[in-house]
Amino acid sequence: MKEANFRLVQLFDCYAPLLTDKQRECFDLYYNQDFSLSEIAEECGISRQGVHDTLQRTESALQELEDKLGTAAREEQLQAVAARLAPIAELLRVSAPDAFRELQSVIDLLEKE
Amino acid sequence: MKEANFRLVQLFDCYAPLLTDKQRECFDLYYNQDFSLSEIAEECGISRQGVHDTLQRTESALQELEDKLGTAAREEQLQAVAARLAPIAELLRVSAPDAFRELQSVIDLLEKE
Repeated sequence: MKEANFRLVQLFDCYAPLLTDKQRECFDLYYNQDFSLSEIAEECGISRQGVHDTLQRTESALQELEDKLGTAAREEQLQAVAARLAPIAELLRVSAPDAFRELQSVIDLLEKE
Repeated sequence: MKEANFRLVQLFDCYAPLLTDKQRECFDLYYNQDFSLSEIAEECGISRQGVHDTLQRTESALQELEDKLGTAAREEQLQAVAARLAPIAELLRVSAPDAFRELQSVIDLLEKE
């Protein structure tokens, strides 16, 4: 399950506030803190199978939210936009330092979230 | 209720896929199509009070989603960013036409959603 880690963690970063406390806790322990299913079961006082089911439901919920809202895709697009602005900023660095600083601050805003 | 129209419609544009069919229909008829409560009641086969309650629950749901996810605020920020890029693009129009076109296409991407 952990292979899909990076993508799922991106979705979690977007939609965690819409999950239940239990979903958030299990997901965080498994994907961010690298706990095993058994360790999470002990930590949360539920069965190993219960942890497994919770993780599966959480992953489905995150994917469904992304299918409906597309927030992670939009943020990815903004990262790509920021990368396209970087060479334009370089072009302005010497000839138009004010515009360079303005563009840098825009890049920071795009990369922020 | 309709005074808050613009803001609510913005939130609806962000989060409509997370509403129920009934919530989406009532909201759309009231805020986008300018139906009265009585007209919606007739259209949907529910009571006028039922329409009123559905609209109130929908508005609360939209506000709660924005409080948790902040998608509308992020999109507003991107509109402001696009406005800040416009004068930089103008600066490049003659001296660096390739960079100008690149920046224009970035502005279009930011304004798109």
